[in-house]
Amino acid sequence: MGNTFRVPDSEIAARIGAFQKSLAGRGLDAALVVQRVDLFYFSGTAQSGILYIPAEGPPLLGIRRHYPRARSETGLQQVVPLDSVRQIPAHVRKQYGRLPRRLGLEMDVLPVREYRFFREIFDHPQVEDASRLILGQRSVKSAWEIDQMRRTAAMSCSTFARLQQILEPGLTEMEFAAMGEAYARKLGHAGQLRSRHFLAEAYPWHVLSGPNSGKLGLLDSPFSGAGTSVAFPCGAGSRRLRSHEPILVDFSCVLNGYHADETRMFAVGSLPKTVTAACRAVIEIHDAVLESARPGMKAAALFDRTVSLADKLGYSDWFLGPPNRKVEFVGHGIGLELVEPPLIARNRSDPLVPGTVFALEPKMCFEGRFGVGIESVFQMTSDGCRLLSRVPVKIFENPTAGSHR
Amino acid sequence: MGNTFRVPDSEIAARIGAFQKSLAGRGLDAALVVQRVDLFYFSGTAQSGILYIPAEGPPLLGIRRHYPRARSETGLQQVVPLDSVRQIPAHVRKQYGRLPRRLGLEMDVLPVREYRFFREIFDHPQVEDASRLILGQRSVKSAWEIDQMRRTAAMSCSTFARLQQILEPGLTEMEFAAMGEAYARKLGHAGQLRSRHFLAEAYPWHVLSGPNSGKLGLLDSPFSGAGTSVAFPCGAGSRRLRSHEPILVDFSCVLNGYHADETRMFAVGSLPKTVTAACRAVIEIHDAVLESARPGMKAAALFDRTVSLADKLGYSDWFLGPPNRKVEFVGHGIGLELVEPPLIARNRSDPLVPGTVFALEPKMCFEGRFGVGIESVFQMTSDGCRLLSRVPVKIFENPTAGSHR
Repeated sequence: MGNTFRVPDSEIAARIGAFQKSLAGRGLDAALVVQRVDLFYFSGTAQSGILYIPAEGPPLLGIRRHYPRARSETGLQQVVPLDSVRQIPAHVRKQYGRLPRRLGLEMDVLPVREYRFFREIFDHPQVEDASRLILGQRSVKSAWEIDQMRRTAAMSCSTFARLQQILEPGLTEMEFAAMGEAYARKLGHAGQLRSRHFLAEAYPWHVLSGPNSGKLGLLDSPFSGAGTSVAFPCGAGSRRLRSHEPILVDFSCVLNGYHADETRMFAVGSLPKTVTAACRAVIEIHDAVLESARPGMKAAALFDRTVSLADKLGYSDWFLGPPNRKVEFVGHGIGLELVEPPLIARNRSDPLVPGTVFALEPKMCFEGRFGVGIESVFQMTSDGCRLLSRVPVKIFENPTAGSHR
Repeated sequence: MGNTFRVPDSEIAARIGAFQKSLAGRGLDAALVVQRVDLFYFSGTAQSGILYIPAEGPPLLGIRRHYPRARSETGLQQVVPLDSVRQIPAHVRKQYGRLPRRLGLEMDVLPVREYRFFREIFDHPQVEDASRLILGQRSVKSAWEIDQMRRTAAMSCSTFARLQQILEPGLTEMEFAAMGEAYARKLGHAGQLRSRHFLAEAYPWHVLSGPNSGKLGLLDSPFSGAGTSVAFPCGAGSRRLRSHEPILVDFSCVLNGYHADETRMFAVGSLPKTVTAACRAVIEIHDAVLESARPGMKAAALFDRTVSLADKLGYSDWFLGPPNRKVEFVGHGIGLELVEPPLIARNRSDPLVPGTVFALEPKMCFEGRFGVGIESVFQMTSDGCRLLSRVPVKIFENPTAGSHR
């Protein structure tokens, strides 16, 4: 039996309608949507194609592969088969009477080569970056989207429970991660995380154990781990898990396009007191944000609150990284991509309006020794912040093998 | 214990030397290498940074995160820490006396936003696309690289053997795929496949069973499968495997940055005769290419050979897709990325010189009914084509459960 999930037509209509208002407000005649996730957001299909959204009137979806599937998946009315993307301007002329003079493009992801190609086939319109409009709109989720993210959260919660069951010393970081992923995929996890930036490589095997959790690296994160080799030097590696050491699991999964992203500390047997204390501190920061965040507050205010709490708790030298190597954010929006606006970061004035969904990840790096962290997905509502995540807020501490098997 | 794999300094020196000749030949003063795989290829480190390669003189590697790791990983001499990429031009001025007038950039992957940023900080040099030079060079592998790819091929071969062991009716496509991947990761598979194009989403769970193997979709491939949902409508899905039906496994894995990519047909119990005959035909085309390919031959000649063989065998209506929906290539280069030049495609004049490594994937789609295919990695040598792949060239046909368990 296949998955019958489909984006409701009413969702698509609302998304297109809101975006057309933004286009008109910016004086753009149209936007050309090319990136797969954006295309899926506005059309309900992720088939290979291109979506032309005029500021007024029905959008036009051109499909290269595979037209019958796209037809059955999308709530849009105007869908045309394309042999080549070059045919799009002719369809636009026919449908709307003329080519756009001011055209929005996804400048944050569109490579130079494609950019030049589109400018040429559209007869050199004035172009503007439409990605901020798209991502700004996507950052505020509808009730239907939040319901989807709840389903992903449930799947993730089951996976964390499973990880606790299967955790045992001797497994490598990567084996442990792969077993968890295989379980999540049984529940519907699609495997692939989506990340937007051309240098981002999102992956779901961020299991860092012992000193690897205190290892800095390429990631814009307080710690990067060892990775499998110099070719992929972050995330899980071949180190074997041991008792009485911190094991950080930052696991993401995706159901019907919507992501979850959670971090918990695991251990077999008790942890050293310094580690436990640091774990409690990040949990305290996590819970305090949950209690104090208010709709409309600025992202920067939330960021600052976590920093001042870490100071107050005596962890300023480790919170968000060691001195001089600290990361500049403590959370990020999440939805159809793992990392979306708003960034919960210093100086970010994005207001956290109701419907905003974000992952908050207070983490600390004791460089070379260990790292700790917690991460949950939060939803801003009109009366405060709620957890979308369902993973228990605790250290996943198993008894040592001898005492429970 | 960590993986001590490292790219030898001699490899890095040879790569830089060859590329500098290309730069000089094109009249470029320098190239700026930003994309992670290109950066790894030329420096031996995949840390977050940027590599400036002048047409003459030692290259300059700027590292944002994490300098000590990059230092220990790279064979390059000039490595500087960066707080911001904005500092690169000042380092270039200091090191080379001036900024480049003609600068090569990776135009096939660099987004417009980054492109504008780099043009600005380099004071608006004349820019050219350097990606073809980079990819052209990367398409011809050194003996050391081919040895790396042999190791990946061995890992892949073990994984196919394991897949045969664990195959049983009732598993979903995705469960079966995830079990295979988990095994490969135990052997060192890094998890993440790398693909260059901003719309490509490479993944290792391309398991298509029964009618799903004959399902067209978004992929530039004869079949795409069902996928997990409309949000990711290709590859493995939730369909359960059955006896006596074709199960196509197109599995890729990566060891120390180098990819393998192989396809074999699996079955539990005997297959219908039409399926077996089609399987034999693609194996015949696969073997004929292996025997007839000669160094220096053009990619198009190889492509044409497979098409004419399929015609001769009576499969022209299905080879590479149904009529009017055929894909235009039968193979692709492979190395640090899953898909690299040369494309083995109609009208491609790239000569298959010794050192070229490519995956050849003759496949047939009987739309709505089933698909079959085989794929191996080939190496061109001075006296013909050899298999790098070690996966047995056969149908992986298990006895039915009752007869062997």
